[in-house]
Amino acid sequence: MVNIKHRVGIKASSQKVYEALSTINGISKWWTEDTTGESEIGKTIVIRFHTQEGKEVGSMNFKVQDLIPETKVGWKFTSGPEEWIGTEVIFDLHQEENYTIVLFGHINWAEEVEFKSHCSMKWAIFMLSLKQLCETGEGQPSPNDIKIDNWN
Amino acid sequence: MVNIKHRVGIKASSQKVYEALSTINGISKWWTEDTTGESEIGKTIVIRFHTQEGKEVGSMNFKVQDLIPETKVGWKFTSGPEEWIGTEVIFDLHQEENYTIVLFGHINWAEEVEFKSHCSMKWAIFMLSLKQLCETGEGQPSPNDIKIDNWN
Repeated sequence: MVNIKHRVGIKASSQKVYEALSTINGISKWWTEDTTGESEIGKTIVIRFHTQEGKEVGSMNFKVQDLIPETKVGWKFTSGPEEWIGTEVIFDLHQEENYTIVLFGHINWAEEVEFKSHCSMKWAIFMLSLKQLCETGEGQPSPNDIKIDNWN
Repeated sequence: MVNIKHRVGIKASSQKVYEALSTINGISKWWTEDTTGESEIGKTIVIRFHTQEGKEVGSMNFKVQDLIPETKVGWKFTSGPEEWIGTEVIFDLHQEENYTIVLFGHINWAEEVEFKSHCSMKWAIFMLSLKQLCETGEGQPSPNDIKIDNWN
């Protein structure tokens, strides 16, 4: 099993960061505008990606596994790209100085594939968007996210 | 052994991207301005990081292992942060449509540590800087790189 792991420090309260990760409204402001479903343990969240012209180019479903206020959010992917099914995303939060540190993991990939390297860059882009949202009030969710290669 | 892997697509020729990765002048325009040494097989490159006020905050040495024009650049770290010693950085290049695809790997970390998660985000930042340099003529090397947490 192989993993994507990133560390980001956000100059905002852990309450604010947790809200951005644990609510539909929050997620829609840093990952993708088209986020629906229910952010409750055992419930499903659906995210869809569109081009700037509105054409749908991808979607994923995940179950919410962990919701520990100001501390942890965990998801398990149940549909989407084949390589993502069964993988988990975890956000672990803690405080250091005036930062909320987010330890991000997208774990349990079956193998080291090129698509994982693409996703690693995209997750970094979305972690920057999360940081920007919590620090300034405005993130860069899809379809206005930074494009990094020919796969988006 | 654990790895950092990123994929980035650059709208520039593989010749231009290779030059940015394989010359001292090129590296100084996307990674850190203070890059010295010789970019030749078996020779050593020294990079130093400074604060914007000019205080040195870190340095690393690496040996050049691979230099295959328009195709591959490989380095092995010989000094710097303890966790980096013995690790290798590889840039594999190929063409897809009008992109030069860079498959970046920082491989052979002994273990999955928090510092690796930090470096994963920083490498993503520097891959964006490399992309920007090759596409626009101007990168964001240290000390003007995007800061991502309390470790820089």
